[in-house]
Parts: sequence; structure tokens; C-alpha cells
Amino acid sequence: MTRPRAREAGIWFGELPTGPRNMITDVPGVAVGHSTIIKGRGKLVPGSGPVRTGVTAILPHKDNIYEQSVPGAFFDMNGCGGLIGSLQIREFGLIETPIMLTNTMSMGAVAEGTIRQMLRSNPSVGVDGETIIPIVAECDDSYLNDSRGLHVREEHVFEAIEKAGPVVGEGAVGAGTGMSCYDFKGGIGTSSRLVSMDNGDKYHLGTLVLTNHGSKEELRIDGVPVGLLLGQPGINRPEQGSIVMVVGTDAPVNSRQLERLARRAIMGLAVTGSCSHNGSGDIALAFSTANVHDKSKHEVLLTDRLLADRELNPLFRATIDSVSESITNSLFKAETMEGRDEHIVPALPIDETLEIVARHGRLVRGR
Amino acid sequence: MTRPRAREAGIWFGELPTGPRNMITDVPGVAVGHSTIIKGRGKLVPGSGPVRTGVTAILPHKDNIYEQSVPGAFFDMNGCGGLIGSLQIREFGLIETPIMLTNTMSMGAVAEGTIRQMLRSNPSVGVDGETIIPIVAECDDSYLNDSRGLHVREEHVFEAIEKAGPVVGEGAVGAGTGMSCYDFKGGIGTSSRLVSMDNGDKYHLGTLVLTNHGSKEELRIDGVPVGLLLGQPGINRPEQGSIVMVVGTDAPVNSRQLERLARRAIMGLAVTGSCSHNGSGDIALAFSTANVHDKSKHEVLLTDRLLADRELNPLFRATIDSVSESITNSLFKAETMEGRDEHIVPALPIDETLEIVARHGRLVRGR
Amino acid sequence: MTRPRAREAGIWFGELPTGPRNMITDVPGVAVGHSTIIKGRGKLVPGSGPVRTGVTAILPHKDNIYEQSVPGAFFDMNGCGGLIGSLQIREFGLIETPIMLTNTMSMGAVAEGTIRQMLRSNPSVGVDGETIIPIVAECDDSYLNDSRGLHVREEHVFEAIEKAGPVVGEGAVGAGTGMSCYDFKGGIGTSSRLVSMDNGDKYHLGTLVLTNHGSKEELRIDGVPVGLLLGQPGINRPEQGSIVMVVGTDAPVNSRQLERLARRAIMGLAVTGSCSHNGSGDIALAFSTANVHDKSKHEVLLTDRLLADRELNPLFRATIDSVSESITNSLFKAETMEGRDEHIVPALPIDETLEIVARHGRLVRGR
Amino acid sequence: MTRPRAREAGIWFGELPTGPRNMITDVPGVAVGHSTIIKGRGKLVPGSGPVRTGVTAILPHKDNIYEQSVPGAFFDMNGCGGLIGSLQIREFGLIETPIMLTNTMSMGAVAEGTIRQMLRSNPSVGVDGETIIPIVAECDDSYLNDSRGLHVREEHVFEAIEKAGPVVGEGAVGAGTGMSCYDFKGGIGTSSRLVSMDNGDKYHLGTLVLTNHGSKEELRIDGVPVGLLLGQPGINRPEQGSIVMVVGTDAPVNSRQLERLARRAIMGLAVTGSCSHNGSGDIALAFSTANVHDKSKHEVLLTDRLLADRELNPLFRATIDSVSESITNSLFKAETMEGRDEHIVPALPIDETLEIVARHGRLVRGR
Repeated sequence: MTRPRAREAGIWFGELPTGPRNMITDVPGVAVGHSTIIKGRGKLVPGSGPVRTGVTAILPHKDNIYEQSVPGAFFDMNGCGGLIGSLQIREFGLIETPIMLTNTMSMGAVAEGTIRQMLRSNPSVGVDGETIIPIVAECDDSYLNDSRGLHVREEHVFEAIEKAGPVVGEGAVGAGTGMSCYDFKGGIGTSSRLVSMDNGDKYHLGTLVLTNHGSKEELRIDGVPVGLLLGQPGINRPEQGSIVMVVGTDAPVNSRQLERLARRAIMGLAVTGSCSHNGSGDIALAFSTANVHDKSKHEVLLTDRLLADRELNPLFRATIDSVSESITNSLFKAETMEGRDEHIVPALPIDETLEIVARHGRLVRGR
Repeated sequence: MTRPRAREAGIWFGELPTGPRNMITDVPGVAVGHSTIIKGRGKLVPGSGPVRTGVTAILPHKDNIYEQSVPGAFFDMNGCGGLIGSLQIREFGLIETPIMLTNTMSMGAVAEGTIRQMLRSNPSVGVDGETIIPIVAECDDSYLNDSRGLHVREEHVFEAIEKAGPVVGEGAVGAGTGMSCYDFKGGIGTSSRLVSMDNGDKYHLGTLVLTNHGSKEELRIDGVPVGLLLGQPGINRPEQGSIVMVVGTDAPVNSRQLERLARRAIMGLAVTGSCSHNGSGDIALAFSTANVHDKSKHEVLLTDRLLADRELNPLFRATIDSVSESITNSLFKAETMEGRDEHIVPALPIDETLEIVARHGRLVRGR
Repeated sequence: MTRPRAREAGIWFGELPTGPRNMITDVPGVAVGHSTIIKGRGKLVPGSGPVRTGVTAILPHKDNIYEQSVPGAFFDMNGCGGLIGSLQIREFGLIETPIMLTNTMSMGAVAEGTIRQMLRSNPSVGVDGETIIPIVAECDDSYLNDSRGLHVREEHVFEAIEKAGPVVGEGAVGAGTGMSCYDFKGGIGTSSRLVSMDNGDKYHLGTLVLTNHGSKEELRIDGVPVGLLLGQPGINRPEQGSIVMVVGTDAPVNSRQLERLARRAIMGLAVTGSCSHNGSGDIALAFSTANVHDKSKHEVLLTDRLLADRELNPLFRATIDSVSESITNSLFKAETMEGRDEHIVPALPIDETLEIVARHGRLVRGR
Repeated sequence: MTRPRAREAGIWFGELPTGPRNMITDVPGVAVGHSTIIKGRGKLVPGSGPVRTGVTAILPHKDNIYEQSVPGAFFDMNGCGGLIGSLQIREFGLIETPIMLTNTMSMGAVAEGTIRQMLRSNPSVGVDGETIIPIVAECDDSYLNDSRGLHVREEHVFEAIEKAGPVVGEGAVGAGTGMSCYDFKGGIGTSSRLVSMDNGDKYHLGTLVLTNHGSKEELRIDGVPVGLLLGQPGINRPEQGSIVMVVGTDAPVNSRQLERLARRAIMGLAVTGSCSHNGSGDIALAFSTANVHDKSKHEVLLTDRLLADRELNPLFRATIDSVSESITNSLFKAETMEGRDEHIVPALPIDETLEIVARHGRLVRGR
């Protein structure tokens, strides 16, 4: 039986309405693709497996993103992690490659694979003084996965990018395949919000998370300390992992403002209970699909439309609520997985979770 | 009848034990002083009043802080605010003046007053190539206070510093006199934690907040969306204010690590419901009383003891829980105040609040 | 006899043409004003004098800057200094007050004076949820000045702002009155450049510096190690001071790009020989007079025109050359000054300087 | 005939003495290795060549750097470039992998190769909750090299690391093979300084640069505008490249202080004439070999010795002078190279250069 998304099960994540799919792809043009790599079982034999890993690609749009870059920003709450491409995002306030997620030690392979994929459609790169520095973020899936085996190869990168579309798989898929969250099985989660401005304009804001962070006793759902109260034990990893949060919107905001959104993603993480562990790479990226600049036009003067900063509060709230829902979705949708060395990460027990939430008067059936 | 602190009323803020006073002054040596300025009532006459403002001084120790500076750091989640001294904190990782809190447009007066107070005991400043740049943070109390009147003068600064001691007044005192929090009366709140390391060492960590932020409907207490459910209306200000959070500890940590603690203060803010409004200066400062360096010794080589980073998780958790409790204390302890133009900021209705928390199964009487 | 500006004396500062005045005020609308405070002589009696200090105000335009703010940014190369207002500049990318320069311990008085001056024309501040956080930067003039006496008062602030106009006094005036540079008398210097874009558009870029930094042996002029070769000794201060650099332009650039310009100001400092001493607050501010947004219009959507980043190289070069010329101008224009305790800071000996530059084949008479 | 290093040819780079080799490897324990890849000539056939690229490895010490990490920091003056590992350097103030340099689009391959190399000697990585995020920086050599061909493979990474030793090849070797500097052939350069403290202690500070930046007309050598005066033309690339600067020292400094050193590397770049072009990734890394912490000891409390900040000025000066000399060495040592599509990057004409420097009275023969 399919596990429900958190909202379907009656969990409440604030007053703002969601987009039609309640996914980051509710932002028009955004596409997400996964490559999931599952092979073998049993004892870890580095290089052989078992393999529980993958790649996820988030595309701000399906055109040539290198030529038609979008405004972007990031915020690293806790930099115990890697983010290839971070310097360029900050300097130019741009995102000009897909945003790629994978396991920590596969960042190199994913960077190279992404470059290869992009070279195909960008013949002037490497010839006319242009280069590509892809954006790659990561979490460590080595509790389940043979991460020493470096199993992610370029074909997985190609698959994630090429398969990208409007429907986002959640749970143990793509980069989320081997991840754990609050000591239960985590991975990919997504959500979205519709934001109405005072002047009647409406914008979409969506988030996608790769969850691998937290300890069971920290977990809160709609404020209820579920982790502390769950009878079902979680795993006991030597080190909590990380979380990557991606925020996309079609609101016209520039890179300075997007960094402000990225910061609010951390608040969404906080309300789910995390303390941003020492060993957790807690990183947020944000992009806007408004104000696309076409590099090939070689314009000297650009024109940006942007919201006045005092209009941003609804987008801040949308980010927090949507990130919080995305994290919870990653837990609701991921099923129990066994990986290397008989490590088993149990799925969040949904019935017991809902019972606890209900007992605290927070379950909203039928919403 | 005295309003209780949140914990006394049965609110739960995590599993860690508090220090004996549950105040930032549980960190040995730390002292806090207030100067509260309340004058007049009725219509605003800029320059005359009504006055509802003040100054709060946090002293890492009562010795000459300029000569015996302490490691320090800050983190500005949302820089809609002022922090005099910020550049020097970041460059040298030091705090060498008291940390002063006041209203926004009185930052200049408080800076000058603090310099005057410190010049008395530091005769070489201004003579031997040394200068003082004091640390001053602020929130805007103009909803109640004649802030255009610039009523804070040097005598208030002297009073706050000289009165500093181990017992911390909470609510509408000192810099908190005119502040509002989640649309109720806020101001000063404090709390502390005792942190035990795996090797048996124990450290104190305390926090003090100046709360002036948030909208009623955001407020959560122990995860319960109290603000949304309270019948009692709050105020409707044109702009949400700010929050300053100060973290002190006797754990041996350096400025890089203190910045990591300061970041966690933001997570403590997040769990009380804030979205860090556009117009909110949300700033955290952190200091350690370990590793005091005596400038007058002119040592070439210094020795720092510091905790390995992987030991910091309990301090992160302590910061989050203690900030969250401090914010709630500022609400529990502040009484209704009338200020300029018959603006009345109501106190948080404690009975109704506790009823809502109890209804959600979260009230812990007798803890 | 009037001392010449560096360029008049034949020093070369790169190939770009200057604006008509070779001052920051070549940027249309920019105005600069000084208040110079010189009183008494002889032994230091703190509180009495001697006084050698002042205030300088840089106004991006002469309209209501609070209502019609301009894009702005800063970069602190070495944060041994103060910059009131820095957090807000970074968060919103805006400058909404004059940029005020003074001595270190007078920052508080100048902040308060600036607020008082601005309150006059902004009646809604302190009433409708608005506040003013002025921008104040500083250097330490205590080698000449009774800085413990805190002699800068609000009337000096008013004077600097109200006198602001298109002609910029250089040398020992305004905030530069008591400052020293490379162990000679420094203070205020300014310069400007005309920048032509590939498409024929022309922009102005001007800089103003407050110099109080460096050791004699470091000083280079047009690359020639003048300081090392000068026979005339400089002073021997216990601590080198700081430098504040202000860059203004009418090129359409946003705050992200202005921070890039501010960084290049440091390169202009570097070519004059500085190592950015430990005790030197080396801070650059930048603003653009393009893209003024009128706060009173309450627009939801703003439109920014901005140069493509790849067009910025000429502005980078202009910043470096103009800062380097401004620093040299502060030395060429400042005359010998005696201050407290018979401290005498000699003017840079121009004849000897020019002789050294000529000997190295770098003097360009009549350019 | 071998081209001389700049100092051997009589160029002056400040008063501080160099270490015995005048290389970064004068810092005890530091080792540098190159892998140089040169294949084919003629027209660019992506994937086939011609290949003009390589890898350079800088090892703070030859023990297990993952277990015995060193304090580290970076500063990105202009983030048009990539620096894998940057977030972790900032969060923990540590360097726990070799510092790897290569061409831009080979960063992924070098990251993966470095991980493979390090996995061999770190069996607990990927098993016990540990991961490796290598440090990789880059410049773009596509003017000479088939960068689309992604010719750097893991064997080149292994070679660079394994060959690392005390003698540093300069010019067109390793990562510098295909790089250009001020429109002449550049690549690798190095230099060092001996710094004496007031208390008699002596420290080594060394720098290594990978130069690929600048336009001919900008180049200054000892302040002399050599580039402007050279008759020999340089190349005319569509985009100026980047520079990576690495600073190593055995002075006891922590990561906050190392970031201060990294900033001064930019000043060393500035004095050679650069304006830090828009398209130039100008990045500095710094590490100290003092205060090595052995991760395998699992200590809770660490002890750091560090220099008081006011002692750092000589290290600042050493950094600036050594970086400036390193850049010039990369030009003096690199020979003319022909790469793809008959692109020829000429070597800096040494005789003409020395003649210009001598004509300006700056040549110091026999020093």
C-alpha cells in the first residue's frame, strides 16, 4: 500500500494554500529527475556494494540553462558539506547549470557528468573563453550505501537530467535512495505554496529537500515532539547527516533577495526539530525563474523587475512552511530500506505518528 | 500578583536541566543591568514624551572588559537593524566592551555613554593608540515610546552598567521597556542550561533576549500554535520589530565556534514561530568567558583551550532551547503597558495561554 | 603657497580620463561637506583639548536620501574599525542616510546628530514604524586630537551636512583634520574617472578617502617606493590607523555589483603600498545614483537597470586608479599640523617626492 | 638556456629575507607535486587534443592529512571560479585533504581522484560515518588546452600527490601547463619569506600561485608598468582567466587569522597590476602547519597556541611580497607554449623586461 504524503494524512503546515501538485514543479517550468541506483545486499565489499544511492537533478527550466541563467543564491547554515559552484553563485547571483544532488564522495563524478551533459548543447564552452562549473550538493548515504565504491557514474547523471519532468518522486529515490532523516528513512521530499500579494499578484514558491539529518528525539511534526514519543526505535548512526534544501519561485526577486529566502529555509528546518548538528551540512539554495537573462544576446544593459523587500514576508512564510512540509514528506513517503552490512533504516511508522499528532489535538483530517 | 516565568507555569523547553537561576547570569561572572525610563502619558509630543524606553547592559565579567576581553561572535539572520561594533567582533573574534541594548535611534547616545563610562578606567585609550568601539544593539520601541525624542542619555548608560548584577529583571525593563513581541508586550527574557559533556565536564550556557518581533498568529509555545488560537487580540503595528539574542557560556570555545552558537540562536527563534520578518533585525551575539586574554600583559603567544567541534551538539541544543525559553519568558513576565497616543500593548494572557497549551497535551505542571 | 594635487604635480594614475573636477562630486548630484574643529594647542588635557578633528558628510544626492535611497554596499578588508549601519546596507543593498566620517570615539555623537538632522525632514520616522540607522565610519585621530574629549557635537554634524556641495576640500579638513597617512599628514583626498562603455555610454565614477593608515616605508607613488627613499622622517605612532574609502558612480549597478566595486577599492589601497595593518580599519563603501527608489511611492514592483557583469572591468580599473589617486591627493594637499602634546605630523615633502618619482622615470609633467 | 627566477635576474620584492629555497616548501613539511599532461598539436578536436593541462598537489605535510588536519582558511576576492571544499574549510577552519589545482572542467575528476587516493589510507571513511570532501581549485586553460576533452584522469591525480616533494617546478608545469598570465605564458610560481618576531622567534611563510589572470597592459614588476612598455605583444584572449594563491606558514595562527593572511594575498596580486577582472576567479587559501590536531585521538579538549593579532603585521607583509614574487616567478620561468589551434602564448621577454625595469632605476643586480 502506498504511503500517503503528510498533508493527505492530515498533518497541518500553516495557512497558505499549496500549488496544484504540492511540489516544487508547481513553479512553472521547473523540472526534477532522479536516477536511483540499488544493487546487491549483504556485507559491504567496497567497490562491489551493496549500492543504495543515486542522483537528483533540479532544472529551473528545460531550455539551455547555461545560456539562459536564472538568479540564484545559497545560504550555508552549517558548512559540514560540499557545494560545488558556490563561489560563482555568490559572485554573480546566478545559477547556470542544473542543481545536482548526490552522495558526498560522488560529487566529483556528478560534476564531471553534468559538464559532459552540458557540453553537448554548448559548443562554445572550452573554445571561446567560457567554462562550466556545475552546482552539486550532497549528503552522506554511507550508512546504507557502499559510498567507498563511488558507484555513481556519468550515465546516472545523464539519466537524472534527461528524465526531469513535472512529477517528483519522493522518499528513497534519486539522491535520497540511501539517506536517513531523524533516524528513520528519509530522502527526497517536496511541497509548494501559492502566495498572493496585496496587489492581487500571485506567485508560486516550491521547495525540494534531500534529508539525511537529525536524531529521532528531535523530530517535531506540526510542533508535536513526535520523535520523543514514538515507541518505534530509529537507527543509531555514528554521525548525523545533512540536509540540502532547494527553493524555487516565479516571484521576481534578485539574488540578494533569494539569499533571504534561502535563510528562511533554515527556519523551516528548525521547526522540524533539528539543531543543525555539528556534522550536518545544512545548505539551502534558492532560484527565481523570473528575470532570465539570455547570455547569447550579449546585452550591455539588463532590466530586472523585483519585488520591494517589504513585500517578501509572505514568501518567507511560504518558504518555512513548504520546507517543513517537504521534510515531513520525505519521512512519510520513504519506505524501510536495508543496505550494506544488514543496516536497516525503518520507515517512519505512520499510524503511530498520526496517533501521537492526534493525541495532541493537531490532526486535521480532510483538510 | 506577579506573573510566573514560563517554566514555573508548566511550559516545557526540552530535556536539558537549567542553571540555578535559569538566567544568563548562571554563567559564572556574567552580570546584567537595566536602566528603565518611563515618563509621561498621552499624546506624542516629540521631545517631551511619553517615554517608554531604556538600556540594558550585559557584562561578560565585572573586571575591566577592555583589558580582559573575551572571545565573541555574532550572526545576523536579518540585518534590518544596527549592531555597532560588529566589524571588530568579526575581525578579532573578541568582545571588549559591555554588550549594550537600547532603542534604535538611541544607539548613538548609548555608544557615547559607554565610551565615557569605559574611559574612566582605561586611561591609555586615546593616548597610546588605543580606541574603544562599543557594542550596541537595538530594537525599535516607537510604538509605545517617543523615540524621536532621543530620551536615552549617558546617565542611563552608566546606571545600566553600574547596576549590573546576577539577578536579571525580565519583561518591560531596561531596553525592553517599550518593546512588543508577537503583538503582545515583550521585552527582556532570559534562561540557561547546564550542559554535561561525555567526559563528565559541565558547562553553563545562558541566553538573554530583547524581543520586539513577530505577529500574533505566528506564536508557538512548545510547538503549540498559541497565537492562532488565542482569543485575546494583540496589537496591529505598521511594522514588526526585531530581536536581539545574546548567548553566553563558560565552555571553552573560540570565536569561530561562538558564531556557530549564534547561528543556533536563530533556530531557537524559529521554533517560537517567527519568519524573521523583512523589517526585523534578528541578530545574535555569543561570548565565552573561557580563554580571557589580558591585553595589558602584551603576550606574543596566546594559548586557547577549545572543545573539539564534534562536542558542540549539546551546546547547540542548549542554545536553541534556552533562546526559545527566553523569548517565552519575555512574554510571560511583561505586563500590559500603555504608551504614546494611548497605544496599549496587552500582556500575553497567561491563563488562556496555559489553557491552550494544556488542551494540546503539552502542559507539564510541577516540573 | 598652495600645495598642488598629485596629478597637477605630474604624477600618473593610469590611462583613464578624470572627470572635470577630478572629485567624487563629478558624479552628478553627489555633494560633500566638512566641519573642521581646531582648538587649542599644547599638552593634552582630556576634555579641553587640543582639538584636531571634524566631520565629513558625503551625500549621494541633495534630495531626501531617506525617502529616495540609493543602491549601496560595503566591503571590510580589515575590520579593525566601526561602521554604523553596516548590517542594513548588506541586508537591503541600500544607503538611505548620508555617509558620515569622523573620529572613532565620536561615532556615537555623529550617529545621533545625523538622526536629529534627518528627523527634521522625515516626520513619519518614529511614528509610523520607521527608524533611521545612519551610516558612520571612522578613523582614529588621537595622535593629534584630544579624542577622549569627545569634542564632536551635533552642530558639527549639521554643519557638514548643510555645507555639502560640489567642491571637496582635501587634506586636513573635516574628518581628515587630525589624520595621518604613511606617517605623514593625511586626511581627505578625492578623484574621479570617466568610463566609456563599448556601446558608447559614459559613466562617472568618483572616490573619496579618509586616510589614516600605513607606515612611511610602505608608501609607493605610481609604483615608486617613495617612502623608503624619502630622507624626511615621518612620525612614529604606536599604532597605524585606518582608511575609509567611498566610491560613487552613476553607472547603473546594483548592490551586488557595488560590493564588487568596493572590493576593488582595496586594490587601489594596495598599490599605494599598504599591507592593511592589523590595527587598521580598512573599509570601502560604494553607492550608485542610478536606480533611486522613492520609498514614498510604496511600489510593489521595482525596476532596476543594471550593467551586465562582464561590462564592469572598466569600472574596476577606474576604482583602483581613482582610490590610488585619492590617497595620494590626501598626502599632497595636507599641510603639516601640530596637535596635542607637541605631536607634529609633517606634510609629505612634495619637492623631494617629485624628485624621487622623476629619478625613477615616472614623472609626467604637463599631462 | 634556463630562464632565471625573478630575484636571480635582479628584481626586488621588499626587504624581508627569503627562505633557503625561496619556495613554499621552505615551510617545514610542505610538499608540492605536479602531473603535467602535454599531448598532440594542431587543430582542436575535442576529446583528442591537443592537451596542455595538468594537476598540482600542495600537501601541508606528508603524513595522513585526513587524520592530522591543519588549520586553514580561504578568501575569494572574485568568485568567478570553483573551490570544492570551501564550505567545510570555513565551518571548521580546517584543511584535511591535499590542496589540488587543475583546469576548471577537470575539478570533478580531480575531486574523485583525490578521494580514491585518500580512501587507500583511510579505511574508516565511508564506514564509520566519515567522508572526504577534497579541496580543489582551478583556472581555465582552454586557450591552449582541449578542455572539453576532460583529459585529466585519476592517474594524474595520483602522480601529483605521490611525487610531491620539496622542490617545486615553476612555469608551465602541473596545473600551470596551459595557463597564461598578463597575456604571456604563466603557470606555477612560488616564493617564501623568513619572518622574525620581536621576541626573536622566526617563522616561515611560503606561497604558491597558479596564474592565469590579467591583461598585458596591467602588468607591473616592482611597481614599474612593464606591461604597458613592453614592445613584445601578448595574446588576446576572449576572457582573462583566474589566479589561485596558496599561503602556507609554520607560524601558530588559527583559521580566523589565516583568513586574514589569505586576504593579504589579494594585495600581493594587486601590486602586480591586476584589477581582478570580472571573469577572473581570484581565490586565496592559507594554512598553518602549527596546531595539527590528530583526529584519531578523539580528544574532547584541544589546545591551540596562537600569535596575538597585533604580531601579524610581518606575516601580512611577507604574504604580499611573497605572492607578488610568486606571480612574477610564474612569468619568468614559463617558456613559450603552442597549444590547440596554433594558439601560441609567448614567454615574457626577460631581456626587454629587465631593460625596462633597469631604465626605471629598479634593477638590483647581484642581490
